[in-house]
Amino acid sequence: MKSVGIIGANGYTGSELVRLLAFHPEVELQFLYSRSNAGMKISEIYPDLISLCEMTLTNQIQEVDILFLCLPHQESRNWLTENPVKEDVLVIDLGNDFRLENNFQDRNFIYGLTELFKNELKSAKSIANPGCFATAIQLALLPLTKEKLLKDIYTTGITGSTGAGQSLQSTTHFSWRNDNISAYKTLTHQHVDEVLKSLNLSNEKEIELHFVPWRGDFVRGIFTSSIIKCDLDLNEIQKKYCDFYKDAPFVTISEKPIDMKQVINTNRCAIHIEKNNETIVVHSAIDNLLKGASGQAVQNMNIVMDWAENTGLQLKPIAF
Amino acid sequence: MKSVGIIGANGYTGSELVRLLAFHPEVELQFLYSRSNAGMKISEIYPDLISLCEMTLTNQIQEVDILFLCLPHQESRNWLTENPVKEDVLVIDLGNDFRLENNFQDRNFIYGLTELFKNELKSAKSIANPGCFATAIQLALLPLTKEKLLKDIYTTGITGSTGAGQSLQSTTHFSWRNDNISAYKTLTHQHVDEVLKSLNLSNEKEIELHFVPWRGDFVRGIFTSSIIKCDLDLNEIQKKYCDFYKDAPFVTISEKPIDMKQVINTNRCAIHIEKNNETIVVHSAIDNLLKGASGQAVQNMNIVMDWAENTGLQLKPIAF
Amino acid sequence: MKSVGIIGANGYTGSELVRLLAFHPEVELQFLYSRSNAGMKISEIYPDLISLCEMTLTNQIQEVDILFLCLPHQESRNWLTENPVKEDVLVIDLGNDFRLENNFQDRNFIYGLTELFKNELKSAKSIANPGCFATAIQLALLPLTKEKLLKDIYTTGITGSTGAGQSLQSTTHFSWRNDNISAYKTLTHQHVDEVLKSLNLSNEKEIELHFVPWRGDFVRGIFTSSIIKCDLDLNEIQKKYCDFYKDAPFVTISEKPIDMKQVINTNRCAIHIEKNNETIVVHSAIDNLLKGASGQAVQNMNIVMDWAENTGLQLKPIAF
Amino acid sequence: MKSVGIIGANGYTGSELVRLLAFHPEVELQFLYSRSNAGMKISEIYPDLISLCEMTLTNQIQEVDILFLCLPHQESRNWLTENPVKEDVLVIDLGNDFRLENNFQDRNFIYGLTELFKNELKSAKSIANPGCFATAIQLALLPLTKEKLLKDIYTTGITGSTGAGQSLQSTTHFSWRNDNISAYKTLTHQHVDEVLKSLNLSNEKEIELHFVPWRGDFVRGIFTSSIIKCDLDLNEIQKKYCDFYKDAPFVTISEKPIDMKQVINTNRCAIHIEKNNETIVVHSAIDNLLKGASGQAVQNMNIVMDWAENTGLQLKPIAF
Repeated sequence: MKSVGIIGANGYTGSELVRLLAFHPEVELQFLYSRSNAGMKISEIYPDLISLCEMTLTNQIQEVDILFLCLPHQESRNWLTENPVKEDVLVIDLGNDFRLENNFQDRNFIYGLTELFKNELKSAKSIANPGCFATAIQLALLPLTKEKLLKDIYTTGITGSTGAGQSLQSTTHFSWRNDNISAYKTLTHQHVDEVLKSLNLSNEKEIELHFVPWRGDFVRGIFTSSIIKCDLDLNEIQKKYCDFYKDAPFVTISEKPIDMKQVINTNRCAIHIEKNNETIVVHSAIDNLLKGASGQAVQNMNIVMDWAENTGLQLKPIAF
Repeated sequence: MKSVGIIGANGYTGSELVRLLAFHPEVELQFLYSRSNAGMKISEIYPDLISLCEMTLTNQIQEVDILFLCLPHQESRNWLTENPVKEDVLVIDLGNDFRLENNFQDRNFIYGLTELFKNELKSAKSIANPGCFATAIQLALLPLTKEKLLKDIYTTGITGSTGAGQSLQSTTHFSWRNDNISAYKTLTHQHVDEVLKSLNLSNEKEIELHFVPWRGDFVRGIFTSSIIKCDLDLNEIQKKYCDFYKDAPFVTISEKPIDMKQVINTNRCAIHIEKNNETIVVHSAIDNLLKGASGQAVQNMNIVMDWAENTGLQLKPIAF
Repeated sequence: MKSVGIIGANGYTGSELVRLLAFHPEVELQFLYSRSNAGMKISEIYPDLISLCEMTLTNQIQEVDILFLCLPHQESRNWLTENPVKEDVLVIDLGNDFRLENNFQDRNFIYGLTELFKNELKSAKSIANPGCFATAIQLALLPLTKEKLLKDIYTTGITGSTGAGQSLQSTTHFSWRNDNISAYKTLTHQHVDEVLKSLNLSNEKEIELHFVPWRGDFVRGIFTSSIIKCDLDLNEIQKKYCDFYKDAPFVTISEKPIDMKQVINTNRCAIHIEKNNETIVVHSAIDNLLKGASGQAVQNMNIVMDWAENTGLQLKPIAF
Repeated sequence: MKSVGIIGANGYTGSELVRLLAFHPEVELQFLYSRSNAGMKISEIYPDLISLCEMTLTNQIQEVDILFLCLPHQESRNWLTENPVKEDVLVIDLGNDFRLENNFQDRNFIYGLTELFKNELKSAKSIANPGCFATAIQLALLPLTKEKLLKDIYTTGITGSTGAGQSLQSTTHFSWRNDNISAYKTLTHQHVDEVLKSLNLSNEKEIELHFVPWRGDFVRGIFTSSIIKCDLDLNEIQKKYCDFYKDAPFVTISEKPIDMKQVINTNRCAIHIEKNNETIVVHSAIDNLLKGASGQAVQNMNIVMDWAENTGLQLKPIAF
C-alpha cells in the first residue's frame, strides 16, 4: 500500500480524487489538505462522500509516497516553494503550472497525457497532468500528427460547469446557465498552447489551432469537433487511429456516432471520425473531471507504480 | 383584418404560429388544418393554448387571405398540388420545398430571409421561409459577403430538441438527451446549400461552408460560431455589420459577448464578432422556433402586408 | 399614459416588470431605480432587454403615477421612510413587508391576490403583492374555504431557481442544482402565514397548513399538490371551482392533468383536482415571476386603473 | 465464481445490472437474454458499455446459478411458465409480479427490501425486488412502524425519467419534459400497496398512505417527503432511525438537509428528519435504478450468496 496526500482536497478535482482513491486497492489516503476548510470533514462539503470517506481536512502536511496537487492554476509553484517535498515522492500536479515549462526545483515534470507519453511516465517522479480540453483535443488529433498533414485545425468544444470550478460566478448561476449556451476565450483559450506543444512534436509544418470553447448547460463532460482538410481515405484514417490507440485501454475509436454521455463517470475517451469530400471531422468526448483531470491523474499514478493501468478506474458509467 | 389559415397547425411551427397570431392585431385565425388531429381542439394537444385559442383542428380548407404551410419537409409541393390555392392568396411555406427551387405552379417563391430580401418581399405572393440553422448562419455572415473575402467558413452550431420536431425519436428521449451533446449530419446538413445560395449571391469566389451541427440538451434555441480568415480590422468589421443591419429591428450587433438565452422567446438575432490575429469568429443566437421559423414567417407577412415589421412580434423574452 | 417608476429594477422581479411594461400600452417607464447599479444600462445586466429597454438605472427618484417596489424582503418599509411618496401615487410592493401587517404611514395595503380581492383593489392606493408559493397555494384552495371544510392541508410545492433571487448561493450554483432536488424551510416557510390569513377569512375552523417546499432543477415555475380530506363529490368540487373563478381570466380549472410548463411565461394559473376515496388532491401551476410576482403586480395595477385586466399580459407562452 | 443470466438485458434495469456485474468479482455474466434485440451486441444499444461488456444479446437460455428477471411488469410470471427454471437457481425478479402475491410454482418469493428482510433473504431462493418509490418510502418510514404510531401518511415523491422505462412516450419527450413538473397516478400509484404491506407488518392500526408521485425533469433519482403527525421528540426519533439502520451499510441518517444528487450513481439511501410542533417530515433520496432497482438486486444476491453486502456496489458517486 502506498500512502497518498491530496493538496486542495476541497475542490472539484481534489474531491473527485477522493472518490476514486477511496476504492483504489493499492493506496491509502493519508491526509487531505485544505487551507480554507481545515477542521471540516470533507463529507460535510460533499455529502456524497458520507460513509465513503470520513476524513477531516487538515492544514498539516504528512510524509507520503504520492502527492496530488489540486490547487488553483499557478498556485502549485508557490506551494512547492513553501512546502518542500522530498525528491522520492511522486508529485502529480493537476494545475497548469508545469505543462509548458516543465522544470522546477530539481524536478522535471513529464506531461501526463498517458496515451502519448506512457513510456516516459513509467519512470517519472513529477507529472504535469493535462488540461481537460487539451486532453480531449489532443486525443482526437494525435494520430494525424504522424501523417505530418495537420495544418489548420478548426475546433469547437463544449464544457460542463464543473470546468469552471466551485466558486460562485455569474456564469455558473443556475438561473443563467440552465438552457443556455455561450462562447468564452474565443481563439485564446489557455489550452491551445498545451495542445500545439504536443501536436508539433511530430509534425513538420507549423500547425494553427483555431479553438472556440463554449459553456454548456450540463455539469460534467466535454465534447469537441475538429474540422481539418485531409486527403487520406476514411478507412485509412480509422486504421491509423486504431493502430495509434491499440494499447490504450481508455480510448475507443467508434465507427458509429458518439454522444457525450456515453463516457460520463468513466475515464474513457470516445472518438468518431467522419469525412466528406476533402474534409474530415474528428469528434471526441470525455468526462472533464475524470479523463480530463482526476481520472487521468490516477491512470498516470498507476503507470508510474507499475500497477494495472485501469486499477481503481473500473467505473460504472452513469449511462443515463 | 386579414384572414389566416394554417396547414399543419398541430406541429411545433404551426402551433407557434397560433401563439403569435392569437395576439396579432391585424389578422384573424380562420382555420387550423390538420389531417391527423382533425376534430381535436388544438389546446388539447398544447395545453398552453387554453384560453388563448380554443379552435378545433379541421381537415376542411376555407378561403383566406394568407396561408401558412407548416408541413413536414417536402410535403408542401404535394399539398399545393392537391389543394389548389387562388393566386392572390399570400402563401408562406415553412418547409424546405421552395428554398432552393423557387418556382412552382405559377408561383415564384421569394426566399424569406427578411434582412436580405426585404425589398423583394414587399411585393411577394409566395415566400419560402428559411431554415433555422440557415437563418442563424446567414445573419452571422451576410455582411462579409459584401467584402467578397469569404472563402472557407468553419461553423459549429447547436440546436434545441424542438428542431427535431414533435415525433418521438431515440435522440429526443429525455433519458438520452438530458445532459448530452452529440453531432449529426456532419458536413452534410441540408441547410448548407441554402446558406451558400445566399452567400454566393454577392461573393465572387466560391465559398466553402464546413458545418458541424450538434444536438443540444435544451429545447429552444440555436447558437453558432463561424471561424473565418479575414484581414479586416475588427472595428471596421463591426461597422460593416452595423451598417448592414441598420434597418433591421430584430438584429443586434453586440460589442459584448452574447448568450443564447438572451433571445429565447423573441424574434431577435444577437451577433457578436471577435478577432485574434488574422482570424475572426462570428457568433449568432436565435430562437429556432421564432426567428428560425414562425416568428420570421410573421415578420415576412408583416412586410408583404405593409404592417409595421414588428407587429405581433413584441414578445416578452423568457430571460431566465 | 401613466408614468411608472420601479425601485429595485436590477433584480429579477424588477427586470421582469420592465419586460412587461415595455409593451404595456397605457404606461410609460419614467425611471428605473437601483442603488447598486446606478449609471449602468439595465440592458447591460439583462441583455435580453437590448432594444426593448435602453434606460439607464438611476439613484434619483422622480414623480410618477405608479411606483413598484421590488426590493429584498423587509426593505420596503425603510425605503418608504427614507423616500416619502405622495399619497396619490399608487404603490405596489412586491416584497413581503405589508402582506401580514397592512398599515404603514397613512397607507392601508390591500393584499393583492387579484382573484380574492378584486373589489377591494379597485379603489386601492397601496397594494401588498402576494408571494409566489402563497399565490399558487391560495388559488388552489380558496374555493374550498367557502365550504368551511378545510382543516388539515398537506402541501408539497416545488420552485425554480429564480425564486431564490439573483445573488450567488451554493444552492443556485449550476453544478449543484442541475438534476437535483432538495427540501428547504420544511413546515416553516414564510408564506404559510400569508396563506392561512386568507384561508381563515371565510373558514370557521382553524386550518393547519403543513407545507414542504422543494428546490427544483429548473429556472421558472411553481408546481404544488395539496392533499385534503374532503367528503364532497368531485363533480361538485369542480363546479365550485369553476364558479369561484368564473370572472378570473387568468385561472384555468382543467379537467385533464396539468403540467407546469403550460403556464410558463404567462400570467396564468392552471388548477387540476383529483379524488380518490375521501381524499382530494389539488394541483396548481404558475410562473413564479409572473402570476407569482411581476405579472400579478401588473394585473393589480390594471384593476386599480380600470384598464382591461389583461392589458400588457397577453404573453406568448414558452410552450416548449 | 457464480454464473449469471439476465432476462431482459436490453432494458434500463437489465443494462444497469450489466454495468454492475461487469465489475463484480464473484460472478460471471453467462448470457444476456433479449427477445427483441437478439443478435445485437448490448454495447450497440448502450454505447457506454463499449469495452465494459462486449456480449451479444441472445434468445437462448443457458444454465446458470443466478437469474435476474428484468422484464416489463407482469411478464415474469409468463416467462417462468414458458421457461422452467431449476429449483436451485436463485431467481431475482425486478418486476412487480411477486411483490404482493409471493407464491408461484414451487417458489416462495421473499420481498427484497434488504434492510427489512435481511435474515429471510439469507436463505432465499426467490426474491421479489421492491419498486423504486416503494423502496424510498419504506426506508423513510419503517423505523416509525415499531412505534405503532403511524396512521395517516402524506407523501410526495418525484422521480426521474428512467423510472418510465426506455419506450418513447409523450411524457418522456425531451421537448415536453425538460424544465417541467407534473403529477401522475395521484393517490393510486401501484407502489402504495407494496409499502402498506410492509408498514402494516408491525403496526397495529390501519395505516393510510396518501401518495402523490411527480414526474421530474431529471433522468436518475427519487426524492420523497412524508408528512406525519407524531408526538415523539426529534432526538428520540433520530435515535430510533439510527438504531434501526445500525447494520445497514447503504442507509445514512443525516442530521443535515439532504439533496437527491448526493446518492446518484450509488446504492445508498439518504434520510433526513425534521420536526415542527407535532408534525414530522421524513425526506429520503435514492438512485431509482440502483437502490431502487438493480443495485438492491445485487445487494440481495450478495446476502443470499454470503458475500460482503457491498461487493460490486462500491460505486463512485456522480457527485456533480
